[in-house]
Amino acid sequence: MTTVHESCAMFAHTPAPPYYAVIFTSTLSGKDVEGYAEAAERMVELAQAQPGFLGIESVRGADGLGLTVSYWASEEAIKLWRDNAEHAAARAKGRSDWYAAMVTRVARVERAYGFGAP
Amino acid sequence: MTTVHESCAMFAHTPAPPYYAVIFTSTLSGKDVEGYAEAAERMVELAQAQPGFLGIESVRGADGLGLTVSYWASEEAIKLWRDNAEHAAARAKGRSDWYAAMVTRVARVERAYGFGAP
Repeated sequence: MTTVHESCAMFAHTPAPPYYAVIFTSTLSGKDVEGYAEAAERMVELAQAQPGFLGIESVRGADGLGLTVSYWASEEAIKLWRDNAEHAAARAKGRSDWYAAMVTRVARVERAYGFGAP
Repeated sequence: MTTVHESCAMFAHTPAPPYYAVIFTSTLSGKDVEGYAEAAERMVELAQAQPGFLGIESVRGADGLGLTVSYWASEEAIKLWRDNAEHAAARAKGRSDWYAAMVTRVARVERAYGFGAP
């Protein structure tokens, strides 16, 4: 099984734009750290199995700020993922227990460029 | 003077969408680490002084992956920042020296929600 750490310590391999990005910024409450880590790993597994999932990039810094960007083929794919029952339950737990603060932004990627990414 | 670390260890305070996000994913080469750190700090200062700059969120993980998302009022604001001479010089140095790999994605934020962010 791929762990969250392994699956996230890499660049997402996205197709040519347009596609969608869900930018998730968070700080943790410090409650139920193990439960959070298990759920985070499970959510990556589940997302990867969703139709229209393109990739994910995720980092949490030493100062506690977390940035996770997941990439999706369409708004429809994002809605299907939002409506996944296990994902909805995890989001509820995130609001009640795991996160001190979080912001989700849904954005349409218009262009992309770079070098060296595998 | 605000350091990169201080200015980035926080949520961006963005207005109601629509606005733009520049998602920058990178790994470092390990060359000229001090020069890179100085330039990164300077770029945040410069960006903050640009018209249309809305905020920045930036994290580099223990595994080396860096995610920086800067938020802008318009495509025009992103173009003005791209055309800033000092920023252009830093980008060239980034390609030649500092980064092992990087991807930049420009995206239009359609909606945003969350809780607890200051």
